[in-house]
Amino acid sequence: MTRTDILALAKRYVPVLDWGRSYTRDAFQNDLLAAVIVTIMLIPQSLAYALLAGLPPEAGLYASILPIVLYAIFGTSRALAVGPVAVVSLMTAAAIGQVAEQGTAGYAVAALTLAVLSGGILLAMGLLKLGFLANFLSHPVIAGFITASGILIAASQVRYILGIDAHGHTLPEVLYTLNENMNDADPVTIALGLGALGFLFWVRKGLKPLLLRMGVRPRLADIAQKAGPVGAVVVTTLIVWAFGLAEQGVAIVGAVPQSLPPLTMPDLSADLVSALFVPALLISVIGFVESVSVAQTLAAKKRQRIDPDQELIGLGAANLGAGFTGGYPVTGGFARSVVNFDAGAETPAAGAYTAVGLAIAALALTPLIFFLPKATLAATIIVAVLSLVDFSILKTSWGYSKADFAAVAATILLTLGMGVETGVTAGVLLSILLHLYKTSKPHVAEVGLVPGTQHFRNIHRHAVDTDPAVLTIRIDESLYFPNARFLEDYVLNRVAGDKAVKHVVLMCSAVNVIDFSALEALEALNLRLKDMGITLHLSEVKGPVMDRLQRSHFLHDLTGRVFLAQFDAWVALTQAPAPEPERQAAE
Amino acid sequence: MTRTDILALAKRYVPVLDWGRSYTRDAFQNDLLAAVIVTIMLIPQSLAYALLAGLPPEAGLYASILPIVLYAIFGTSRALAVGPVAVVSLMTAAAIGQVAEQGTAGYAVAALTLAVLSGGILLAMGLLKLGFLANFLSHPVIAGFITASGILIAASQVRYILGIDAHGHTLPEVLYTLNENMNDADPVTIALGLGALGFLFWVRKGLKPLLLRMGVRPRLADIAQKAGPVGAVVVTTLIVWAFGLAEQGVAIVGAVPQSLPPLTMPDLSADLVSALFVPALLISVIGFVESVSVAQTLAAKKRQRIDPDQELIGLGAANLGAGFTGGYPVTGGFARSVVNFDAGAETPAAGAYTAVGLAIAALALTPLIFFLPKATLAATIIVAVLSLVDFSILKTSWGYSKADFAAVAATILLTLGMGVETGVTAGVLLSILLHLYKTSKPHVAEVGLVPGTQHFRNIHRHAVDTDPAVLTIRIDESLYFPNARFLEDYVLNRVAGDKAVKHVVLMCSAVNVIDFSALEALEALNLRLKDMGITLHLSEVKGPVMDRLQRSHFLHDLTGRVFLAQFDAWVALTQAPAPEPERQAAE
Repeated sequence: MTRTDILALAKRYVPVLDWGRSYTRDAFQNDLLAAVIVTIMLIPQSLAYALLAGLPPEAGLYASILPIVLYAIFGTSRALAVGPVAVVSLMTAAAIGQVAEQGTAGYAVAALTLAVLSGGILLAMGLLKLGFLANFLSHPVIAGFITASGILIAASQVRYILGIDAHGHTLPEVLYTLNENMNDADPVTIALGLGALGFLFWVRKGLKPLLLRMGVRPRLADIAQKAGPVGAVVVTTLIVWAFGLAEQGVAIVGAVPQSLPPLTMPDLSADLVSALFVPALLISVIGFVESVSVAQTLAAKKRQRIDPDQELIGLGAANLGAGFTGGYPVTGGFARSVVNFDAGAETPAAGAYTAVGLAIAALALTPLIFFLPKATLAATIIVAVLSLVDFSILKTSWGYSKADFAAVAATILLTLGMGVETGVTAGVLLSILLHLYKTSKPHVAEVGLVPGTQHFRNIHRHAVDTDPAVLTIRIDESLYFPNARFLEDYVLNRVAGDKAVKHVVLMCSAVNVIDFSALEALEALNLRLKDMGITLHLSEVKGPVMDRLQRSHFLHDLTGRVFLAQFDAWVALTQAPAPEPERQAAE
Repeated sequence: MTRTDILALAKRYVPVLDWGRSYTRDAFQNDLLAAVIVTIMLIPQSLAYALLAGLPPEAGLYASILPIVLYAIFGTSRALAVGPVAVVSLMTAAAIGQVAEQGTAGYAVAALTLAVLSGGILLAMGLLKLGFLANFLSHPVIAGFITASGILIAASQVRYILGIDAHGHTLPEVLYTLNENMNDADPVTIALGLGALGFLFWVRKGLKPLLLRMGVRPRLADIAQKAGPVGAVVVTTLIVWAFGLAEQGVAIVGAVPQSLPPLTMPDLSADLVSALFVPALLISVIGFVESVSVAQTLAAKKRQRIDPDQELIGLGAANLGAGFTGGYPVTGGFARSVVNFDAGAETPAAGAYTAVGLAIAALALTPLIFFLPKATLAATIIVAVLSLVDFSILKTSWGYSKADFAAVAATILLTLGMGVETGVTAGVLLSILLHLYKTSKPHVAEVGLVPGTQHFRNIHRHAVDTDPAVLTIRIDESLYFPNARFLEDYVLNRVAGDKAVKHVVLMCSAVNVIDFSALEALEALNLRLKDMGITLHLSEVKGPVMDRLQRSHFLHDLTGRVFLAQFDAWVALTQAPAPEPERQAAE
């Protein structure tokens, strides 16, 4: 390889080499401001999501430092902010809850392992260019999954607002255990929690308009709104400290080690790896899909394109980083990325500065959150995730297609009722099965000539010319094994009663594949029709399909011809009803 | 319901009421002759297949009596002969080998349960009209599975020829255990076995020509050939008896109860049912596919049609019958059905007469086969199944499509290496995955006008007219979630560099479905192109697809128009480059 080749390759896999060289002071200033805003927002969020994942709060901070830097080096999105996110935190809790007890050392180690596994999977998918696999998560399945997860997450946090114990990875479990321990509810905690909840909801809706009316500059009002959670954290922490509520049983964050992210070793023993592999795979794919859709949305606004396969590499690196520095699985979060984007981040460098900010927080600020009540963190989570809950997809998909509706409904119900992993898996499988079922009973139209054109359409939908001796059938599906016998039966039943038919033309404009089973079926059809004295023709066979047919015996045995255009078939057959042996290829 | 309704319904579900009334003496004579020939052939075959299934020989006879009668009543094929067949016998052995020890009472009961389960499944599928499910077994998968099964069966019978012990449900297992016990090989048994093998192969190939040369009437020569196995049975039995070979360690059939099929009760305990359900399902589907393809082949020769869903009911009844009369799973066999057909059977009544013949055999002839050496039965099986082995499918599928080849190869290898159930399941899953993979990266063609026509084809394959301002893209696949983002990326990348493009026309002649995910992608594409000042149009949208689009907002937001024919789009856009708001529906 020449030096330029190496450089090109390096630039491809390490985008920073590309945008890094053209980094200007302007960009630097914008990135820095964005970083400050995002940092302020991320501190409480990181602590809260760690709580959601069942991990100590510092894990949330650690998971936001090195991963951000690594993504800044390997990722392609200019605005994506990587770190702990709600859905992945929930999936993490569900996954490692099966292999270790919360609060044990094993639990934290399992989280590291999960991050490394998912990092490895993402990296492998990226290098193997398997980004397209994410497409098998259909839009309805994702929408349903996110909504259901939002509900699950909110429900799982209610216990901190009430100051009681509850657990479970399905809605019934959570509600049941909540109800069981309802009597232990602590009024003081509830007051704090509801207070924080009310405040945060108000910040979201009411603060900015108020400030604007008070003549505050929009940009500043924006920042104030983003800083709302910090306000809640500060105020509630002070209250707890001032009135010594911790002694009265208000659950607090407590001592958080004052340090940079530690170097940690995941446990890669065969048992743990095999136990966590499937969850890691699901987390990787879900995280990737969420991240890519955010990145694409933001990139589009600036006419930028992102490279999904390189995104896999960026996220893979980020997760490996998380696994070796005391974190847990991370991905590109919607909220933080939008904030980053709105705050004017121009390059991934903004992410790096955010990392520095969080590192400082981890070093210096952790003692200040000793008295931070868990209820406040729970409140920030609830406010954040309830914005994910959106049932409108049920209505829109119902109106458009029952199959898509079924996929959404199944995903929502199963996620709530049987947990995130079952829910998303079932959603994907169901959408595939429904597709296979549809293609196994394809739509078939008998077509005729639209007068005055060379265009053929369904005789039942349009006023078209037909010829009793020429039966033209347009099959609206690729011909492959699930529907191979279908066409044979359809045609034979159609011509059975109709003595007038002398020619059957299969219009193949919608046939994108003819697999081996379908080829067999076509050969059988050709023979059966021959026995009945009917000639079989094809028309509008596509290039790739024709290439394949030419490698088989079918074109040899075909009693009729292959016409380039349906109109050619019409002209030839309606004028010369006698079948002709001579044949003409479509290519 | 009126009396006629009931009659019609009865005729539909009990075809015998239909053909039964027009039964003539001619038909009776032909059926009777066919029955005699088939009976002669079935006696040794039934005993042999029971041996293959690991059951006592009489089970094979029992499985051929009531089931035949029930199929004659409920089945739709005139020539299909139902009973034990090689592949299903092998699958039976594999299935019940997992829940019971061969030779134990539990083993025989498990066989009954398996038959009843598969009967119930088939009946349910028939009443629910699920016959189409069989199509998911693609032709290559079936071909590969039959070939591999043939090899497995032949290998499993070698032990009887050598007079040694061996077991296993995969080729490695069988070969390994054979090799282990090779030292116990019994020369006398080997002599008998090889003799029988040689004789049967010769009968298959050499006997008929010889007789014809000797001037024997063809019909008679045919019958003689069919009777070959009986000859081998008689001769070897006499040899064993005359020379007292049984005492010298030649394995014989021994005492077979002299009785009509007994009334038996399957064990339907939850454990056994849940253990056997999946195998029963596989046996049902495989058996159904084999049976239907035989029935269709024979029906076609006489211009008759068979009803797959009614076939399910017929086979279901037959298997229920087998389960309650000491048999095991049965289906329509190829060999016996062809014999029945060639012998001139005209109605299912022939089957009923065969049943009578076999009942007489079960009552009267069983003592005569006391000294029948198992080696002879093994020989008849080997000769029968080796005719199933056909590797040509590997070559033909390789030439036609690598995906189909992969499915065949995987099915053969996994069936031999990991057993029949894994093999066939993997084959089906692989063919589905390969199809999904293909559709996730569809073929897309940029098309132009074929001069002098209204027909549009690939610009890279045909000499066509194009207009730099009008980019027409024909996507050769339904638009659904696996490829939803693909089109968006493709179009955006295509127009990115090309400033000349003012209009993008998506030619939808090959788009049979636009699901919700694809709709989202189209809406995104429409907006992105709008931002670039490019108008998006559709053409040749099919009725069913258009119906759906009209239920969405897309047609409202679409910047361009929907053209009935691509030629209309060409005329409108190449003449009037300015985008027009006014829209025209495809319907």
